[in-house]
Amino acid sequence: MEFTIKQIAQLLNGEIRGNDSLKINQLAKIEEGKEGSISFLSNPKYEPFLYTTASSAVIVSKDFEPKKSLATNLIVVENAYDSFTKLLEEYQKILNYSKIGVEEPAFKSESASIGEGVYRGAFSYIGKNCKIGNNVKIFPQVYIGDNVTIGDNTIIYSGAKVYNDCLIGNHCIIHANAVIGSDGFGFAPQADGSYKAIPQLGNVIIHDNVSVGANTTIDRATMGSTIIHEGVKLDNLIQIAHNVEVGRNTVIASQTGVAGSTKIGENCVIAGQVGFAGHITIANGTKIGAQAGVLSNVKKENTSLTGTFAIELKDYLKSYAVFKKLPQLEKQLRDLDNKLSEIINESLIYER
Amino acid sequence: MEFTIKQIAQLLNGEIRGNDSLKINQLAKIEEGKEGSISFLSNPKYEPFLYTTASSAVIVSKDFEPKKSLATNLIVVENAYDSFTKLLEEYQKILNYSKIGVEEPAFKSESASIGEGVYRGAFSYIGKNCKIGNNVKIFPQVYIGDNVTIGDNTIIYSGAKVYNDCLIGNHCIIHANAVIGSDGFGFAPQADGSYKAIPQLGNVIIHDNVSVGANTTIDRATMGSTIIHEGVKLDNLIQIAHNVEVGRNTVIASQTGVAGSTKIGENCVIAGQVGFAGHITIANGTKIGAQAGVLSNVKKENTSLTGTFAIELKDYLKSYAVFKKLPQLEKQLRDLDNKLSEIINESLIYER
Amino acid sequence: MEFTIKQIAQLLNGEIRGNDSLKINQLAKIEEGKEGSISFLSNPKYEPFLYTTASSAVIVSKDFEPKKSLATNLIVVENAYDSFTKLLEEYQKILNYSKIGVEEPAFKSESASIGEGVYRGAFSYIGKNCKIGNNVKIFPQVYIGDNVTIGDNTIIYSGAKVYNDCLIGNHCIIHANAVIGSDGFGFAPQADGSYKAIPQLGNVIIHDNVSVGANTTIDRATMGSTIIHEGVKLDNLIQIAHNVEVGRNTVIASQTGVAGSTKIGENCVIAGQVGFAGHITIANGTKIGAQAGVLSNVKKENTSLTGTFAIELKDYLKSYAVFKKLPQLEKQLRDLDNKLSEIINESLIYER
Repeated sequence: MEFTIKQIAQLLNGEIRGNDSLKINQLAKIEEGKEGSISFLSNPKYEPFLYTTASSAVIVSKDFEPKKSLATNLIVVENAYDSFTKLLEEYQKILNYSKIGVEEPAFKSESASIGEGVYRGAFSYIGKNCKIGNNVKIFPQVYIGDNVTIGDNTIIYSGAKVYNDCLIGNHCIIHANAVIGSDGFGFAPQADGSYKAIPQLGNVIIHDNVSVGANTTIDRATMGSTIIHEGVKLDNLIQIAHNVEVGRNTVIASQTGVAGSTKIGENCVIAGQVGFAGHITIANGTKIGAQAGVLSNVKKENTSLTGTFAIELKDYLKSYAVFKKLPQLEKQLRDLDNKLSEIINESLIYER
Repeated sequence: MEFTIKQIAQLLNGEIRGNDSLKINQLAKIEEGKEGSISFLSNPKYEPFLYTTASSAVIVSKDFEPKKSLATNLIVVENAYDSFTKLLEEYQKILNYSKIGVEEPAFKSESASIGEGVYRGAFSYIGKNCKIGNNVKIFPQVYIGDNVTIGDNTIIYSGAKVYNDCLIGNHCIIHANAVIGSDGFGFAPQADGSYKAIPQLGNVIIHDNVSVGANTTIDRATMGSTIIHEGVKLDNLIQIAHNVEVGRNTVIASQTGVAGSTKIGENCVIAGQVGFAGHITIANGTKIGAQAGVLSNVKKENTSLTGTFAIELKDYLKSYAVFKKLPQLEKQLRDLDNKLSEIINESLIYER
Repeated sequence: MEFTIKQIAQLLNGEIRGNDSLKINQLAKIEEGKEGSISFLSNPKYEPFLYTTASSAVIVSKDFEPKKSLATNLIVVENAYDSFTKLLEEYQKILNYSKIGVEEPAFKSESASIGEGVYRGAFSYIGKNCKIGNNVKIFPQVYIGDNVTIGDNTIIYSGAKVYNDCLIGNHCIIHANAVIGSDGFGFAPQADGSYKAIPQLGNVIIHDNVSVGANTTIDRATMGSTIIHEGVKLDNLIQIAHNVEVGRNTVIASQTGVAGSTKIGENCVIAGQVGFAGHITIANGTKIGAQAGVLSNVKKENTSLTGTFAIELKDYLKSYAVFKKLPQLEKQLRDLDNKLSEIINESLIYER
């Protein structure tokens, strides 16, 4: 990244107060600015930093007036926060889509068709009959198996692996070393105690605008498809088993696992390290706290479930010791209750 | 895949009712069939779909007689379910073992020996003194370090990494981006608070018929071997630490972690997200529920252990608030018990 | 590895008793020794193995005198344990740093600068403006994005991916398929229920002597840096989210996850499968047990927190059934207490 303050002001439709020719080469928080960086001021709490920042430029809202003299240069816009966000987005877009063409050696099957504006990094692999859309960015060491279709503007980072027959939509982001389409974990027990693999011949379908985190794994269906619906965001190191379905705009945090054939609804928010049993259905809008184990259907929409908490070791051990005696405790309580009732009755009789 | 109905009928030793020359290019559930797909009917519940399916062929058992006219074609066999399974397996075999030869560029050390019928995908790497058996399939971007031995008919999917000195048996499947033989996590604390790595000079031994899931990691032993015995099935994102041993035909679901030197017995069934402490021994046939934390030996065979459950947030918070007061509750109960005994004694005395 | 006993004795400054010309090609426990292996005897408990071992050489301390005749050869040193450790370390060093030069094809941007003694494995990728220090070992299929700096003597194993702009210090070890610098998981909810990615434009800084396990993921900061301080040891399959900071000499075991912006102090010891909420601060010297969920700040240094335990299923279900009734149980107890007090009061009144 290297722009002049003037170029950035034009992009943001802003007005410059100060030197418009300085070069900007990075973004920084106002309190961490350096020469060549651009920052923004939105929260008044941070105003004192404006007068001391080393950033070369600061984006401010038009209703803001500095109370002291400034060493930095201002870009005055309608709304500083929105403009900075726009700047970030534009910059990200430039970063993401700047790569184009083929870095050799890259492997492409003859029968694969490749759109326009595509980047194929060195040591990337594209199998037979693949259809790769326009502006797709395939980073180095990516593997795309046979018969895979990838929509337009999708980015697949280094080392991600897509097995045969999978479909990936438009505007998706697949992070490094994610695995899509590995065999579902299905084995039939044999008489001798061994297991025989059940063929996993389905695929994975990832709809538009899905994000898949680094080292996340999504298994192919036994038959049919494991489906990740539009707008789903998956964090790193997540496990999605065979024949699972994740509904539109559901967000799942890191290290969560979803067992086979479970259907998660739309607009759910799932925290990290959650585990879902197989063959259950989770209603739309369900919220699940970190480390929860979800073993049965959630039928009511917008339910909140919780997981485990940490506690000081010595407190926990004390509580846990009693926890194991709870059934006995309950019995004692019932006995007490009964005895007390008897006494009360006796007393009443006695009083009469 | 593309076969005629006739070819499939021959494979399954079945009899055709209808057109035997139609082309089949995929497998589908009977309710999801399309032109070109083949399905099966075993469960009578699904019979209505037989009369409406768009599948080009349906496999049925010989004791089944359709009650209406059919648009599809039948392959009549002894047992429809078994035949369909056989078809799946044959198809999977074709898929798995169809690749053969070398896609350039692929790296092979001169001192490595390679069996017959081997596939070496583009950008795969085979180090010094490796011995690769017959019909081994090494997908693109796989890394095989020095002195690695791999048995016959083993498949290693794209991006899996096998460090130096490891041994992998026959008929194993290693899924994408799995890591075998990374350093065990062993560090000696130093006087200044820092840690010094303890050299990890052992290896990993994987016996025959083992399946290793995508992104699963198996660390090499400090000395000696981390051992995965015959027939073990490991799901995705599992951690097997150094010097661990997993017994024959044990199945472990996704995201489970086994700490160093723990020995898991044979024929165990371990659910997902389970954690095993280090240096413990788990008896044969142990079953462990999802998210359990196993901190000590399981001595009795065929024990079932459980993990954590989810619960509605507001219920949990209420229970948890009391959980922390359990030791105090227990004391109160004891006090009550004592007081009650006193009263009863008094009452008895009084009555006398 | 292949040395003579004489060469090893020289390295350890030891004295040989027996044949000094035998070849040593592996290390083994004394009870597992084979021809060509070297072992050590430190714990007297293992002395009986000395007389039966098949190892070609055994390292012993100078204050040890064998009580029987020996088939093996001795290397007599000041302290057998220390010498064996030194031997392991030297051997590991040879293994780690023996590779040098470039295996073609390897990709290097023209603008990247490479130090001396570097190994670049086949199919490795080095982006624009990278600065790679001396003796860095970049294994096959590693990806180093643009503008990455890597210090001296760092080892990056096969398939590890380092995104643009990240910094890695000296003497670090990054294991296979680890991902450094993937996008932080930040999404802004939109009015229509969808999510828009918040650009993640920061980086990851890894200081000196850090170890990162296989398939571990460390996300880049939204702005600024995700920081792993000097001497930190991360096991396999760990998730470090954006803007996290892990303090000096902290050790984290496998499958633990740290959510965004959390700061973990120095010299902490975190067990496996722990989950940290976002935006919390953990004091120096905190110890956390396996599977704990840490949801709030730990302010007191050297606190120990615990996680979940496993329990026999039938016991658990009994306890858990009562656990859910705990609030009701507490109320019953309070009621009992009140009634009892009444009775006692009445009794007292009565007695008066």
